[in-house]
Amino acid sequence: MRQPAGRSARRSGGERKPREERWAELIEVATQVFYEKGYDGASLQDIADRLGMLKGSLYYYIQSKEDLLFDVISSVHKDGLAVIRARAGVEGPPLFRLRSVIVGHVEHTCRNLVPTAVFLHELSALPLERRVEVLGSEHAYQGVFRDLIESAQQAGDVRSDLDPRLAALSVLGSTNWVYRWFRPGGSFTPEQIGAELAELTIRGIATEQGLGTV
Amino acid sequence: MRQPAGRSARRSGGERKPREERWAELIEVATQVFYEKGYDGASLQDIADRLGMLKGSLYYYIQSKEDLLFDVISSVHKDGLAVIRARAGVEGPPLFRLRSVIVGHVEHTCRNLVPTAVFLHELSALPLERRVEVLGSEHAYQGVFRDLIESAQQAGDVRSDLDPRLAALSVLGSTNWVYRWFRPGGSFTPEQIGAELAELTIRGIATEQGLGTV
Repeated sequence: MRQPAGRSARRSGGERKPREERWAELIEVATQVFYEKGYDGASLQDIADRLGMLKGSLYYYIQSKEDLLFDVISSVHKDGLAVIRARAGVEGPPLFRLRSVIVGHVEHTCRNLVPTAVFLHELSALPLERRVEVLGSEHAYQGVFRDLIESAQQAGDVRSDLDPRLAALSVLGSTNWVYRWFRPGGSFTPEQIGAELAELTIRGIATEQGLGTV
Repeated sequence: MRQPAGRSARRSGGERKPREERWAELIEVATQVFYEKGYDGASLQDIADRLGMLKGSLYYYIQSKEDLLFDVISSVHKDGLAVIRARAGVEGPPLFRLRSVIVGHVEHTCRNLVPTAVFLHELSALPLERRVEVLGSEHAYQGVFRDLIESAQQAGDVRSDLDPRLAALSVLGSTNWVYRWFRPGGSFTPEQIGAELAELTIRGIATEQGLGTV
């Protein structure tokens, strides 16, 4: 996460809250406002109003509305990527790790519905340079899925006629889509959804040999 | 599609184009502006400017910006639904029809990337009543997929431990997601994508018996 502007400056106001807490609150409110009104429809005034701050005071933390969007988007992306990279990096057959990556990704999405929606809907509002900074030039997220599918294919665990890029995009679609329909307390828990989407994916791509590894 | 307001009134301006053509052009431009600026960030002034019209002249066709969004969204939804319903309604085993539905849905999405993005990103900007009017109270789109999967399950062609609702949401995610990554002239044609996503789905859900039907 980028440091808020002025983080090291002396506080001039009469606020009681530590700056880090104020910053976290600002990001949380900005996420909600971008979600409700869309990035273009949201103003710094809206965000200041909801925080009970003067709009001018926001410039103590940020230089522009775009800085807020960048932070919302890069935080949720970075956190999710850390989850799936950790699960992809353990010991074990690639399809076994792919199952764990899918479950972890679905659980992360279910726990972060609003920031995920802002990420997916508003990424294009960032200038190209900052988009690349978030995603990585190789689309890091997609790469984790594709690399596991490729490894499994090389081991004979995934059908040889399958294109690992298409398969990765299919899994990403199926799992990311959860942000649109998951409701806490609804018919399915994040764990159930993760397990079922992993099962569907693995049966879709695996050879007989591969099914024996998971 | 709703009739534009004033469609039956006498034309008062000096326009050369027939009203239907003007209306189609208005919807096309509105779709593009909503896509680029987001619904909340887009104004009727933006749309009028791009059409080379006075903003006031738009009220000859619509009563509000919301009317335009409703038309963009309901048109692409209605067209796509007609495509998949036609394919779901033919003769044949349910998994055979599901394959055709998936291919048709992917091709429709690839041919309608911009309206699909507006539909998926801006649906929530419509009041609940109009959202229900678009989707149907039972989420008609999802229902086509779920019904086919249920029929296949009853015939023993789909695993009995699978929840048809979850499976339908998984397919919808995998296929809808195409709107985010498909590029005309890129590595894959809509036909290739449709065929591969259908194959992944069917292998993911089918029994041995079911695989024999497709």
